[in-house]
Amino acid sequence: MNQNIYDNNEFFRQYEAIRVRENNYNNLLEQPNFLTLIPNLEEKVVLDIGCGMGDFAAYCIGQGANYVTGIDISLNMISEAKKRHSHEHLTFTNIAFEDMNIQNDSIDFISSSLVFHYIEDFQLLIKKISTALSDEGTLLFSIEHPIVTANKGSVDWVSNREGNLLHFAIDRYQEEGLRSQNWLVDNVMMYHRTLSTIINTLIEVGLQIEKIIEPIPTIEAVKNLPGLNKEFRRPSFLIVKARKI
Amino acid sequence: MNQNIYDNNEFFRQYEAIRVRENNYNNLLEQPNFLTLIPNLEEKVVLDIGCGMGDFAAYCIGQGANYVTGIDISLNMISEAKKRHSHEHLTFTNIAFEDMNIQNDSIDFISSSLVFHYIEDFQLLIKKISTALSDEGTLLFSIEHPIVTANKGSVDWVSNREGNLLHFAIDRYQEEGLRSQNWLVDNVMMYHRTLSTIINTLIEVGLQIEKIIEPIPTIEAVKNLPGLNKEFRRPSFLIVKARKI
Repeated sequence: MNQNIYDNNEFFRQYEAIRVRENNYNNLLEQPNFLTLIPNLEEKVVLDIGCGMGDFAAYCIGQGANYVTGIDISLNMISEAKKRHSHEHLTFTNIAFEDMNIQNDSIDFISSSLVFHYIEDFQLLIKKISTALSDEGTLLFSIEHPIVTANKGSVDWVSNREGNLLHFAIDRYQEEGLRSQNWLVDNVMMYHRTLSTIINTLIEVGLQIEKIIEPIPTIEAVKNLPGLNKEFRRPSFLIVKARKI
Repeated sequence: MNQNIYDNNEFFRQYEAIRVRENNYNNLLEQPNFLTLIPNLEEKVVLDIGCGMGDFAAYCIGQGANYVTGIDISLNMISEAKKRHSHEHLTFTNIAFEDMNIQNDSIDFISSSLVFHYIEDFQLLIKKISTALSDEGTLLFSIEHPIVTANKGSVDWVSNREGNLLHFAIDRYQEEGLRSQNWLVDNVMMYHRTLSTIINTLIEVGLQIEKIIEPIPTIEAVKNLPGLNKEFRRPSFLIVKARKI
């Protein structure tokens, strides 16, 4: 199942409203950490899976990449990306990664930011990525942290009567599979996978783990978005960098 | 700081009482999963850090290891190990790993079961292990899972009025360092580290991650120890296998 929540117009409208704000989780927490793990892109071929509005794909062109393709299953997103970014070596295509025909060993860097938790068959996804990557090619992706996805749709933060947060609730950790939550609209679907499934799936197809980040906000970021203080209590995101060996 | 809680006689007496029972977390959950990750030990040199009563070290001899050393900072444990196991290629020594002089690249397999969370300086520990390992040598260790150590000593399981478990509480995840808990005796100390610290520390010294297990009990194990049902809701242990490259 490819969930195309971003072509739900109500969702897209609300999502755009968040993303144009400078102070959001992506800009203050996920992206700054994601960017620290980008390999040298000069002369490289890049694929960004779930490119959204295309900012990261355009950034890769700026980093000297030879050719960058951004794909997204949302036509809304691809239209927006094309409006925002234009370069002769930058292509945006409205297609699912699963449906792409990609030559083996042809892509040097595959990136994906907060998309893989929407994809049902993680094994198939990672297998196809590994096949598409060139020797020594890099995969860099971020997902919602398994600590957060485990009990998604049920209790998350527990508060006392005064409204103070007591702790974060974890449950159902070993029950992998579909979770639904209400985020901007009702019933956004995502898939919970354990940390060991995520790591072992990469290793099994020949991707060597290079680094893992569970992002912590800077003091400056917390000043701009005080809710980020919660990130010290449990991580929202997991960022993984791996290399084809 | 090397915490030697096992030479607290009250602790040791209670610990022995648990370990002689067949139905405990070690025998039903941690050890069966740990054993699945042991490499071929024939003709190999083995070091078991925190060998306790020596059962695992003796098991390695049975697997064809050429020479096995079990070390433990508890004299109680080493005395017990020597009573239980005797073999000309098996040695038990009452010493801390930090205090050992080990020739570089001299050990093929280093194992450690539920010990590393007692060790304060994880970077130094892992660096010394990597130096001691031979090329292609293997490190296999288990620790309490970061999900569990994060809020250790404070709220863990949250129950409703009827005593049913609602969820497990996580908090303070990004605050690494000392935690105390009351387990058998008051104030058993352990160190919380995030998953990313654990994984990245290995990678930084040249140990390649081979597999991670967050153990799930078998149906049979749950029959023998019903409390193991909780393991589906949050993992107690993390087992990591890595190879020197």
